[in-house]
Amino acid sequence: MVDKKDRDVYLEKQPLDEAREKFLEKLKDVGFFTSKEEQCDVINSRGRVTSRQVRALRNSPHFRSSAMDGVAVRSKDTKGASKGDPKRIKRKDFYFVDTGEGIPDEFDSVIMIEEVNKIGPREIEIYQSTFPGQYIRPIGEDFKKEETVLPKNFKVTPEAVAALLNTGNFEIPVKKKPVCTFLPTGSELVSPEADLGKEKAPETNSHIFRGYIDKWGGEPITLPIVKDEYRPIKEAIEKVLPQTNLLAIGAGTSKGRKDYTARILEDLGEVLVHGVAYRPGHPVILGVVNNKPAVGVPGYPVAAWLCFQQFVKPCLEKYLGIKSGEELIVKGRLSKKIKSTLGLREFVRVKVEHEADKRKIIPLPSGSSKLSSLIYAQGILEVPENLEGLHKGELVKVRLF
Amino acid sequence: MVDKKDRDVYLEKQPLDEAREKFLEKLKDVGFFTSKEEQCDVINSRGRVTSRQVRALRNSPHFRSSAMDGVAVRSKDTKGASKGDPKRIKRKDFYFVDTGEGIPDEFDSVIMIEEVNKIGPREIEIYQSTFPGQYIRPIGEDFKKEETVLPKNFKVTPEAVAALLNTGNFEIPVKKKPVCTFLPTGSELVSPEADLGKEKAPETNSHIFRGYIDKWGGEPITLPIVKDEYRPIKEAIEKVLPQTNLLAIGAGTSKGRKDYTARILEDLGEVLVHGVAYRPGHPVILGVVNNKPAVGVPGYPVAAWLCFQQFVKPCLEKYLGIKSGEELIVKGRLSKKIKSTLGLREFVRVKVEHEADKRKIIPLPSGSSKLSSLIYAQGILEVPENLEGLHKGELVKVRLF
Repeated sequence: MVDKKDRDVYLEKQPLDEAREKFLEKLKDVGFFTSKEEQCDVINSRGRVTSRQVRALRNSPHFRSSAMDGVAVRSKDTKGASKGDPKRIKRKDFYFVDTGEGIPDEFDSVIMIEEVNKIGPREIEIYQSTFPGQYIRPIGEDFKKEETVLPKNFKVTPEAVAALLNTGNFEIPVKKKPVCTFLPTGSELVSPEADLGKEKAPETNSHIFRGYIDKWGGEPITLPIVKDEYRPIKEAIEKVLPQTNLLAIGAGTSKGRKDYTARILEDLGEVLVHGVAYRPGHPVILGVVNNKPAVGVPGYPVAAWLCFQQFVKPCLEKYLGIKSGEELIVKGRLSKKIKSTLGLREFVRVKVEHEADKRKIIPLPSGSSKLSSLIYAQGILEVPENLEGLHKGELVKVRLF
Repeated sequence: MVDKKDRDVYLEKQPLDEAREKFLEKLKDVGFFTSKEEQCDVINSRGRVTSRQVRALRNSPHFRSSAMDGVAVRSKDTKGASKGDPKRIKRKDFYFVDTGEGIPDEFDSVIMIEEVNKIGPREIEIYQSTFPGQYIRPIGEDFKKEETVLPKNFKVTPEAVAALLNTGNFEIPVKKKPVCTFLPTGSELVSPEADLGKEKAPETNSHIFRGYIDKWGGEPITLPIVKDEYRPIKEAIEKVLPQTNLLAIGAGTSKGRKDYTARILEDLGEVLVHGVAYRPGHPVILGVVNNKPAVGVPGYPVAAWLCFQQFVKPCLEKYLGIKSGEELIVKGRLSKKIKSTLGLREFVRVKVEHEADKRKIIPLPSGSSKLSSLIYAQGILEVPENLEGLHKGELVKVRLF
């Protein structure tokens, strides 16, 4: 029915897991997951990912210190001391120490201040013997010089920053953030602050992209809006390809008159998947161009969001060598029935309400155009491909955000 | 035993929940949780917290658009159309539309392109009737003008940024980030990059503080290191108080000769809690000075970390009006027994290993000085106050990071 094109682009519906697998497998084959390395100031390294093991450059702690407020003594001087048979120690043979303070070399143990009796200005009485090392924090107790402080592929936490500084690491090798570019396409799109007139729509999917790329450890870039014509889109892609690690093309992913994304990616590289058997937003394109991931992102915002979560996020995680943590799954009863289509995985946005000690799972409107449903959602309920829906009152699992 | 002080500072052990409750209750009474407001550019608002409800300044979408690639028609022209009795429609009575494109005012419904047969250059044949609104995205479908886009106390997500821009919000009112100041005290402390000599220790707890304050939505500030003497510490606190919302004083929280924190906070304001019945790091001080929280943080890094999590984090959450999300709790069997002290809550750092489909919970070294134990931990196991430990093989709950 549509104006005849030179080549037909087939929009299929590949099962989600299969589609993602195929995409990531191909990216692995072309060597995409080999990250670059750069040096990073440790004090600004929180959230960065180590590109190799980092070792201690000095002992931490680097001197023997007291683990208690007390008195440093030689254990041999305390032998046999007890409540019934206290021992007295003279000034030159003990030393007052506070927690964290260095222990003079001649002493090998500390008695807690509470367990010492001060006899006169230069003498103490003790009631128990000590063992060598008692209440002494040894050199290198936390990290010995040369010991591993952080393994490779470690996402730097605040406490890791402290450990690095303690061990004399002021710069560390980290993975260069992958540059992730979003190209918004659509003749109706304008910047949100522009005059929308009668039929212009604000371009805002780039802001969803930007926020998540930043969160997932990438360097987001948004290109200027390009009208939906073959040549300008292709040129914008060709121009940015050498400078980006990942490319996401907004809209034009279906098979309408002006859906050029799949054709352009075919012409520049390879389209692995066009259409994923899920909802909302099945017209996803997964391609590889210049050995880089090129994702065609459906235009509706919830569809774009889901595409980022399902296909862009794993690209970044594998590139950075980090794993998603365990997911926060809760169970509850569905407040109303959900219909879904056999053969499609349905991603339902839900609210979770607590009633006594039970959870009620409330499905939100399913439209792929409704950002509101995403904003008020607390989690996602996946209806698997082999079901046509879920009953009201059914016990379901929800993945919380 | 220790050198006589003017006033004795009593180090007790208050139960954790009681101590935190007392602290937060007092902060509420003195009006600490009344945050200030500022305007924030929406494109930089991710992670900020709204200080009031934000409403749509325009409809989103603000024009009727097609939800499908297809043909816009008048529903009255399609009445009675069926496979057996198709209807033909002339060029002036239909209009080709792509997904997202505006619908001319005279049409009220869309037929999917797949269900239209093109007869000639100026005529189509259809096989079903349409209803008004069919496949048309109405004005304000996502947000109607004046409708709430974000409620008060909402932490801005990437999709919220998109929704704000869609609805014409380019600046929003957010809570001013609370300024949180860390004052490191200790004559042995130096900057990590300085020469440590024989008995100097790198000051790094401020970096743990900084990272978490940033993560929790505050504005972290670190003051220069102050030696552990009464007057310089007191002066540093007095100087910074007018410019900070929260003050954390590193070390000097016990009852040794040089532990001035509690005495200074007593002299400047009120000490509510000195000593918490938990481990590691019971010498915590919770005070209020100038109606602001003043926390005495134990010097060992894991103790400092726990103090931030238990007492500083809830201050920020309540100040910003946000709730901690549900926590990710997993169950598994303990790999070895844990000893703990009756009356103390023990925070055990643990690793979680998967064996077949079971989880093994492996306790890490318990020393409060060992950052390494925190870095390699995946979660925290709390041993409650009324137990003296846990058995090997016991089924336990772990809160994952």
